[in-house]
Amino acid sequence: MHVAILGCGQLARMMALAGIPMGMSFSFLSENNEDTAPVTGLGNIIAVEDYPSADALFKAAGEPDVVTVEREQCSLDPLKKLAEHCSVHPNPTAIYHCQNRRREKQLLIDCDVSHTPFVSVGKAEDLQTAVDELGFPMVVKHTEQGYDGKAQWRLYNDDNVKQFIDDAHFEPQSDGAVPYVAEPFMKFDREVSFIAVRATNGEVRFYPATENVHDNGILLHSVSPAPDLSSALTAQGQASIQRLLEKLDYVGVMAMECFVTQDQLWVNELAPRVHNSGHWTMHCGVASQFQNHMRAIAGWPLGSTELMGSAGMLNLLGVELDQSTQMEDKVALDWYNKSVRPGRKLGHLVLTDTNPNAVKTRLKTLKEKVYRN
Amino acid sequence: MHVAILGCGQLARMMALAGIPMGMSFSFLSENNEDTAPVTGLGNIIAVEDYPSADALFKAAGEPDVVTVEREQCSLDPLKKLAEHCSVHPNPTAIYHCQNRRREKQLLIDCDVSHTPFVSVGKAEDLQTAVDELGFPMVVKHTEQGYDGKAQWRLYNDDNVKQFIDDAHFEPQSDGAVPYVAEPFMKFDREVSFIAVRATNGEVRFYPATENVHDNGILLHSVSPAPDLSSALTAQGQASIQRLLEKLDYVGVMAMECFVTQDQLWVNELAPRVHNSGHWTMHCGVASQFQNHMRAIAGWPLGSTELMGSAGMLNLLGVELDQSTQMEDKVALDWYNKSVRPGRKLGHLVLTDTNPNAVKTRLKTLKEKVYRN
Repeated sequence: MHVAILGCGQLARMMALAGIPMGMSFSFLSENNEDTAPVTGLGNIIAVEDYPSADALFKAAGEPDVVTVEREQCSLDPLKKLAEHCSVHPNPTAIYHCQNRRREKQLLIDCDVSHTPFVSVGKAEDLQTAVDELGFPMVVKHTEQGYDGKAQWRLYNDDNVKQFIDDAHFEPQSDGAVPYVAEPFMKFDREVSFIAVRATNGEVRFYPATENVHDNGILLHSVSPAPDLSSALTAQGQASIQRLLEKLDYVGVMAMECFVTQDQLWVNELAPRVHNSGHWTMHCGVASQFQNHMRAIAGWPLGSTELMGSAGMLNLLGVELDQSTQMEDKVALDWYNKSVRPGRKLGHLVLTDTNPNAVKTRLKTLKEKVYRN
Repeated sequence: MHVAILGCGQLARMMALAGIPMGMSFSFLSENNEDTAPVTGLGNIIAVEDYPSADALFKAAGEPDVVTVEREQCSLDPLKKLAEHCSVHPNPTAIYHCQNRRREKQLLIDCDVSHTPFVSVGKAEDLQTAVDELGFPMVVKHTEQGYDGKAQWRLYNDDNVKQFIDDAHFEPQSDGAVPYVAEPFMKFDREVSFIAVRATNGEVRFYPATENVHDNGILLHSVSPAPDLSSALTAQGQASIQRLLEKLDYVGVMAMECFVTQDQLWVNELAPRVHNSGHWTMHCGVASQFQNHMRAIAGWPLGSTELMGSAGMLNLLGVELDQSTQMEDKVALDWYNKSVRPGRKLGHLVLTDTNPNAVKTRLKTLKEKVYRN
């Protein structure tokens, strides 16, 4: 089974490391001179730009049996070309819906999924509508740019709105989509993500919901199962992501990020791929999100998503590799082979415990140790 | 951290796949034109025969920080050469003791470890001594050849003895060691293995003991924890392997295979390396034997060896790769990338369950499914 992955970052790396033991081989498709260090040595790397024709691209990718992606912000054109020759999972249409925040909102509406309120912003005047409907403070997000909290603007008053209008570029995005959406600045209690996998036969499995803490828009740490998440909210989240997967005829792993306010779940964002908040699955005796994504897209039977005990994940952001202090008992390390830059996601640690409270305490101690300097 | 592994089989493959996520890179040292398919793509492969000098070998191996082995039957010469430049774990002396069955028996005697009775056979007359002391039936094993039950002869009567003497080659082995040892044909209840890891700081950790079932001398399946193994035998086994590790100043994973007869433990064989009966550790939420071997030889803190629930392992011997039927819920696959030959170890399946009885039942069903054809 030969698999091509569009993207050469840590998610591609971890998908390959999950697939190789199951008898898969890999090639990696790079775009826009992206950094390929994480996948170097794990398979052939080709630049999609070098192969304009479907036939040439398919051959250069090693005639894969199936193609997948590690990010939603990718060119759909090579995926559509490859789909002429082999399976592409998730399908390009599913990725298309997640590439633009406005389209993603529409998908949530169409699937009757509770989502953060929003106002589409296609021109300057729409900002006033947003202020009237949502009030201050407000966050404006570009519909197609940004990740990890980038390309977002917090507006607290009319001056901020004027400044934003002066700086903004109101060009329509792909297929005429608006360039921005405005949302209220949600006063949530916490952030929770749901990760599910859907097989080619339609079977859907859910990992336990995960509670996530972000720092400056970047995920810093996670705990799973999300402590004290009510069974009602758990059921709501699982039913929501299942409706999305089925609507999109999706195959593989999808992540759904939510705000939780008291007894409400608000879906904030979808990721049509394996997700940082699911990295804990690698060391917990379940089939990891990476393994299950590969099993799903290959058409093989899915693996277990049932966690025994509890898990914590700490991202290594901009810190040098130091296994001697970063690893400890019941802590595993996954390093991405990237060069160190301030704030860059370079790896993560997963800690496990039979006791959920112990996970929280140990995660705090581990964070202090890792970020001491 | 760059690591060189002497050997290019599945154990080298799984060590590399455990080390890469922790930031390690690898090179592999082949001997005697061995099959290198299992490690192809995971690092540079060199033939030790091509580099007679210590300096050249160290350079060709990529100037490793540490060197390890995947088998005990290897040339010690390249290891000794590399030890001039970097750490070699386990140390060549430890491997030396395990390379010859007679020396291994002496090690067990010196460490006061309960072992199967034996008679050294250096010449034809020694066979009569063996018959007198051990009686029939008896098994004669070459001291330096054979694995997976090869180079062993079962003698049931005097005619078998005469035939064996006619066929035997009584040349002394390395350092004058006898070419054979004779052992009684042990009437054991079951076979159990202990796997332990020792860190550079002397810390020793034990995986749960594992019960193993062999077929024609080749491991077919394992269950861990070994059902109903008394705490006395568990303690005896752990104390024995700890004494061996300390006596040898051993760093890394070692396996100790034992016969169990009623309330007795008899050590049959040592393996100075990761071991087939520990493959279940890869999918059980513990730090696998491969991960812990790499952590130990790198001088990093050890990971947990505490299994939650129960695990079963089924070797894939001479069967074609077929993920669709071999994988199922709570079953993981590790394939070795080797070409299929009858009876050849090509991969293994690990199944997990919270219920030890369910593991046994499911393992039986899985075995029937895999070997149906």
